[in-house]
Amino acid sequence: MSEGFVSLVGAGPGDPELWTVRALKRVQEADLVLYDALIDAGALRRLTGAQCFCVGKRAGRASVRQETIHRLMIRAAREGKRVVRLKGGDPFVFGRGAEEAQALTAAGIAFEVVPGVTTAVAAPELAGIPVTHRGVARGFLVVAGHSGDPLREALSGVRPGSVTLVVMMGVAGRARIATTLIESGWHATLPAAIVCGASTPDEWIWTGTLDGVGAAPAPVDVPGVLVIGAVVEIREALALAGGPAAAGPGKEDPVDAGASSQVGYGRN
Amino acid sequence: MSEGFVSLVGAGPGDPELWTVRALKRVQEADLVLYDALIDAGALRRLTGAQCFCVGKRAGRASVRQETIHRLMIRAAREGKRVVRLKGGDPFVFGRGAEEAQALTAAGIAFEVVPGVTTAVAAPELAGIPVTHRGVARGFLVVAGHSGDPLREALSGVRPGSVTLVVMMGVAGRARIATTLIESGWHATLPAAIVCGASTPDEWIWTGTLDGVGAAPAPVDVPGVLVIGAVVEIREALALAGGPAAAGPGKEDPVDAGASSQVGYGRN
Repeated sequence: MSEGFVSLVGAGPGDPELWTVRALKRVQEADLVLYDALIDAGALRRLTGAQCFCVGKRAGRASVRQETIHRLMIRAAREGKRVVRLKGGDPFVFGRGAEEAQALTAAGIAFEVVPGVTTAVAAPELAGIPVTHRGVARGFLVVAGHSGDPLREALSGVRPGSVTLVVMMGVAGRARIATTLIESGWHATLPAAIVCGASTPDEWIWTGTLDGVGAAPAPVDVPGVLVIGAVVEIREALALAGGPAAAGPGKEDPVDAGASSQVGYGRN
Repeated sequence: MSEGFVSLVGAGPGDPELWTVRALKRVQEADLVLYDALIDAGALRRLTGAQCFCVGKRAGRASVRQETIHRLMIRAAREGKRVVRLKGGDPFVFGRGAEEAQALTAAGIAFEVVPGVTTAVAAPELAGIPVTHRGVARGFLVVAGHSGDPLREALSGVRPGSVTLVVMMGVAGRARIATTLIESGWHATLPAAIVCGASTPDEWIWTGTLDGVGAAPAPVDVPGVLVIGAVVEIREALALAGGPAAAGPGKEDPVDAGASSQVGYGRN
């Protein structure tokens, strides 16, 4: 019996077309896929004949414990299976991927990490917001917003407004996060955006200023990121028309690019 | 004649397997590809029948001016061509991609942005370094190292050592950058890494401390990133064996996963 192998794979922001070519290969060749709640399960099952189990955590639902995920991966690898641990975004950006790598290392299981398109950059980008821009933002800081103290600690190290701030997993707690930021010295009138469900049919985009983030009517249960900084205004410069060009051109079905809806990004 | 369309596409850190599925589609269906110097031109030409022009800038070589790139894209789109502007990493991370989007918007050209795997995250990751890790790094800051003043300005907004620091385009200037960091209050003994040519045959990895970065014998002309922070030490915990598992398993050619070289990441 051949030895098993685990691939810790980033699935990007949502749309399977934003998977990497290697991610697609690994999923197609897998025996077992352990996937997060944010993965499009229907698309996944169309792409592979592997056993697919959702081990994801999501607000309001029972979750599989991290140790259980480790055990499932290790057991399947020891049975000689090719295991894909499919995670939203990039596995090493707030994904506990490195903890999974450590568990595999400790168990002597061969593994690889397949980087993915991180939602931290792609969600703003798909909404027309570059995290860096010449003369506007010389860098970007990515933090997680899911709990108060770590966020406060991460923010305490940064001068308000000095770089683009991307807060992941921060939509549900956006009122608290905006208050924390303003209390930490971030200007209430800084441009801000909320991007939920980037690259999925649930995409929802809001732009305004930091003091409006708390009251913004963001959807419940569609994960997203907050972006704070002057780069948010670039979206306006790119948003000349009524719809996004995200669908792109097709070989068989050429885009009617003359339509205004195909120019630039859409406004919400 | 159908209208043209421009796709601003991120190509990830180097290996075409780390392109997204959409990037591959766009390149395969393109009439014209304008690519950066960091793209693997041989792989590109094997993947597409499109005209391919290198417009990249690289130390010591004549470069195509940014305005010329804009003109080439716009002219080709007006001729009805499907144009792919293929950029290393992600197009909106220090790639001037948003400037290209603005130029296309101003010219009324339909376009899309296809996010890529950003080298800022993937290069450390492929070397076994997660930019975030529970209890170690609550966030990460990405800046560019190619010129002194913007770097100094970006760093002035951050408390030394508070988050993982990733410096892109900073290998050639690493001595100056390390000096700037230490002068700005970053501890000389902070763990540091240099990762060049991630995911390519030229991959080269060094780890040590910040005060050793300047003297590290990094290769010339292989671009890379600097990583400063405690997360660098996680690489050691994952580096149990002599070689990386980056090649992964093959369906036809199963990995001999029992070999020590397949466990974890390699040491340099």
